[in-house]
Amino acid sequence: MIQGIGASSGIAIGKAFVLPNWELEIPEQRIDVADFAKEFERVYEGIRTSKDEINQIKDELKDTVGEQEKQIFDAHLAILDDPVFMNEIQGIIQRQYKAAEVAVKEAVDHFVTMFDLLEDEYMKERALDIRDVGNRLLKHLLGVPEIQLPSDNQPFILIAKELSPSQLAHLNPENVLGIVTLTGSPSSHAAIMARALGIPLVVGVEGKLTESLVTGQSMVMDGSDGSIYIEPTEHIVELYRQLQEQQREAKEMLQHLAGYRSVTADGKYVRLEANISSLKELEIALRGGAQGVGLFRTEFLYMDRHQFPSEEEQYAVYASVAEKLQEDTVVIRTLDIGGDKQLDYYEIHEEQNPFMGYRAIRISLDQPQLFKTQLRAILRASVHGSIKIMFPFITSVSEVRAAKALLEEAKQELRLQNIAYAENIPVGIMIEVPAAVMIADALAKEVDFFSIGTNDLIQFTLAVDRMNDRISQMYDPYHPAIIRMLCSIVEAAKRNHLPISVCGELAGDIRALPIWLSLGVDSLSMSAHSILQLKSRLIYASQEECKDIFAEVLDCTTSEEIKAALDQYMEIFDLTANG
Amino acid sequence: MIQGIGASSGIAIGKAFVLPNWELEIPEQRIDVADFAKEFERVYEGIRTSKDEINQIKDELKDTVGEQEKQIFDAHLAILDDPVFMNEIQGIIQRQYKAAEVAVKEAVDHFVTMFDLLEDEYMKERALDIRDVGNRLLKHLLGVPEIQLPSDNQPFILIAKELSPSQLAHLNPENVLGIVTLTGSPSSHAAIMARALGIPLVVGVEGKLTESLVTGQSMVMDGSDGSIYIEPTEHIVELYRQLQEQQREAKEMLQHLAGYRSVTADGKYVRLEANISSLKELEIALRGGAQGVGLFRTEFLYMDRHQFPSEEEQYAVYASVAEKLQEDTVVIRTLDIGGDKQLDYYEIHEEQNPFMGYRAIRISLDQPQLFKTQLRAILRASVHGSIKIMFPFITSVSEVRAAKALLEEAKQELRLQNIAYAENIPVGIMIEVPAAVMIADALAKEVDFFSIGTNDLIQFTLAVDRMNDRISQMYDPYHPAIIRMLCSIVEAAKRNHLPISVCGELAGDIRALPIWLSLGVDSLSMSAHSILQLKSRLIYASQEECKDIFAEVLDCTTSEEIKAALDQYMEIFDLTANG
Repeated sequence: MIQGIGASSGIAIGKAFVLPNWELEIPEQRIDVADFAKEFERVYEGIRTSKDEINQIKDELKDTVGEQEKQIFDAHLAILDDPVFMNEIQGIIQRQYKAAEVAVKEAVDHFVTMFDLLEDEYMKERALDIRDVGNRLLKHLLGVPEIQLPSDNQPFILIAKELSPSQLAHLNPENVLGIVTLTGSPSSHAAIMARALGIPLVVGVEGKLTESLVTGQSMVMDGSDGSIYIEPTEHIVELYRQLQEQQREAKEMLQHLAGYRSVTADGKYVRLEANISSLKELEIALRGGAQGVGLFRTEFLYMDRHQFPSEEEQYAVYASVAEKLQEDTVVIRTLDIGGDKQLDYYEIHEEQNPFMGYRAIRISLDQPQLFKTQLRAILRASVHGSIKIMFPFITSVSEVRAAKALLEEAKQELRLQNIAYAENIPVGIMIEVPAAVMIADALAKEVDFFSIGTNDLIQFTLAVDRMNDRISQMYDPYHPAIIRMLCSIVEAAKRNHLPISVCGELAGDIRALPIWLSLGVDSLSMSAHSILQLKSRLIYASQEECKDIFAEVLDCTTSEEIKAALDQYMEIFDLTANG
Repeated sequence: MIQGIGASSGIAIGKAFVLPNWELEIPEQRIDVADFAKEFERVYEGIRTSKDEINQIKDELKDTVGEQEKQIFDAHLAILDDPVFMNEIQGIIQRQYKAAEVAVKEAVDHFVTMFDLLEDEYMKERALDIRDVGNRLLKHLLGVPEIQLPSDNQPFILIAKELSPSQLAHLNPENVLGIVTLTGSPSSHAAIMARALGIPLVVGVEGKLTESLVTGQSMVMDGSDGSIYIEPTEHIVELYRQLQEQQREAKEMLQHLAGYRSVTADGKYVRLEANISSLKELEIALRGGAQGVGLFRTEFLYMDRHQFPSEEEQYAVYASVAEKLQEDTVVIRTLDIGGDKQLDYYEIHEEQNPFMGYRAIRISLDQPQLFKTQLRAILRASVHGSIKIMFPFITSVSEVRAAKALLEEAKQELRLQNIAYAENIPVGIMIEVPAAVMIADALAKEVDFFSIGTNDLIQFTLAVDRMNDRISQMYDPYHPAIIRMLCSIVEAAKRNHLPISVCGELAGDIRALPIWLSLGVDSLSMSAHSILQLKSRLIYASQEECKDIFAEVLDCTTSEEIKAALDQYMEIFDLTANG
């Protein structure tokens, strides 16, 4: 057994296809001053062809991958359009009398080395992008064909040193059972795409996978835990085949719960909602039994484009979501960019600590025209269904008042234009910064509802960037400080008669269910694929028992004790759920 | 009047000396393959001379500037030693047949452009360092002399486009009344040095200072608010001369308070201690009336060197501090690197959000040998005076237990070696992360004292990086959430009978004094230069009145209301203090 890093979950059983190591041969040739123009034109032509090809791949992928994946290709297009890149190539041609392909190769090497030197994961990914798009350009200059995959049309498990997003895009997902790459990380672009395409992926097995592995050998891989078996025994294959079957069955079983009401065994109803980013995700959420949308992340409407979306564009999307939900509610969170979410066309000056920087409501209040365009779109959509507005990243009463003042301005504008909107549209805030927890009573007086954003709240409370590999094990939702924060928020909400929901990842975590049931939150909003799983536990749980568990939890001084107390109950849960 | 940005406080009145714009003329000459070796040798020779010169400047500066300033020269030395830099130069010589000076110029331009492109303040500073050290190297290759300053030995106000740290280092502080630079920022290396040298500095007047300004014109500048007057009227000169005199007198007046006990008008004693980083700062602190050291930032012992300090070296410093303090106590905070404090010889992988990363106690627990070396040094010093140990950046009970276990190991080792130490050395923690506030009662059971680190606590509670210009106005110590956090910490300390002190910048802020007096903290630890200023208010204040003010503060929902309530009291204060 070889242990890699699981990067996209799922089991694959099949034959290996080992991608040959593929290095471009570049002819050494010196050119003459008279050739400069011709070589420049060759570079331009290669760039044009490469751009056409990338745009075509983007089109082909339109329906199979999400916005984030498509951005990879936009990144490639941006490199090809970058004057710095072009200048470097032209400089090498002119100063060193080298041919187009040599100049491209050297320019790419130069930038890759430069980015690699920066010792930053993000920059290293950029280096991979430059290498990838540079290879594409080189292929066009040299006339080398695409990688050939097995022609027998048999499914296979792909083994590669590393895989670029565009290589991945050329694969037919039907034929690729799984992928193993020697290098790479779960946060690479290729990994993001593999997850979007639903292809199991294991990365980081450099030096572990034997050199002798060849195309045609049988293997088993599990993208959840990163385990790989080469020429597995019949027994192993059988084991994984059963596991694969169980996973399929479990998924089917859960689907039956979609129509059930989410009520505990002792009668407490908790609304289970979905977090979505697009209309497409709404459909998946509705099939998955979501009773509304507790968090519509509108920033994704702003991504993967070249300018801010217009009021009309936004209105169309918000209205559709509201209509599709019929009686159910959608909570529209206003623009939450900054931090790790950037827009190509709106540059945020590089920040030393972007998580604690210029982001979310801070940008909206700083750019009132931008903000009001969104508010008008939401208000106009509010006559098409049940819509609530939610402001992200609130840290003070003044921010809420400023945001509400702009909402009033937007209403006033619509009134003057005789455009219909729901006058009493509920306004709420995310509680996701420790400051908001500390002043929850004062904030409650300003708004109609709270929604707890556990992800950021945990990060700031513990001073842990969960994206930082070195300390991400310290990102601990069950830290007693977090439990106290959650308790304090819910108590403030109840004291002020506000509905309270949870929309961070912890909302969908089965282990946390007793916490939410005990505190008595009104709704939990999560990824669509977690809803039925959580519901399968919730219907067997008892709010009263959860209160007993929670009393124990509040006495704990360490996270280990808290998890032990919760798991004890969850075991009973699982027995009931499976019984 | 011209408005610049104040970068180092103080008033200067005198004649301008305008630094001529200084561009090196580089001869264009092509070299032959046969010259390669000679040109390489010229570069090596230039680098050697530059390094000798830098080391000499470092030596000369030894006593006038602090560790941080000396690091600038280490950064320059590191650039000269960087193989990437040398490779680039050699590459240009070999590939482009260019002479040493041309290659150096182009390599420097290349790296400066590259770092400038990154749009990051830190990188821009690095670009300035490369330009600076590159110019030094070029001067040696070309044989250009140093900038000539006025030879009449008359004091002057220096006007320059920009000023590099090494240029600044060559100035005789006696003769430089003040400095104005067209570009630059208050966080630049030059600004840090100007503050350390006590030279008033105004930056950022590009396009504001008239072209016609010439050497010999009279001027007035104020480094506190950034105002500059060229050929000021007699009236203005007189005004600033009075201000300058007042500042001098105020400083003298305060000095009389050094011997006073820091007791409020109604008899509440609050110990006023100093935050220090070195033995030299301890002496300044003692002259400034410090009654002990509430925070010894040991990380500065680790900076500006090429390897970790040995146990012996640390022991010598800790023991000296303890001895110099006699009866008073020093609180030694264990290594607090990471975040924005880096060591040249211990690389921390670049982090997306270093403030929420691998730092402080997280590193100490991850590197137990490193940590124990420091703990042994502190323990050994503990027999020379009154020493307390403090762990930074604590977020959980488990961390405290792990740190204490390592302390026990260190004690055990010393016992086995028959080395003396204070068995009952008090152990405390910084409360500077929201999590620690939430679990303060549990933490109190593990330690002997708390010290509130307001700087980080404010940053995490409000999710605001105070170094980030774009949002630093949101870094608000008087946010009601912060007041509640402070209240909650002090209450937990008192409930558990622990001494409580404050060592963040807020400890020395006069406006915050009623908060500390009302809460009844035991000591306040601050920069040495704030102690007497604060004492001058404290001795006229009444703890009882402060409690009334604080009751008002607790009712406020915004920072503006809180500041207004506090300022109202401070006005009475000031009247009393001046009456």
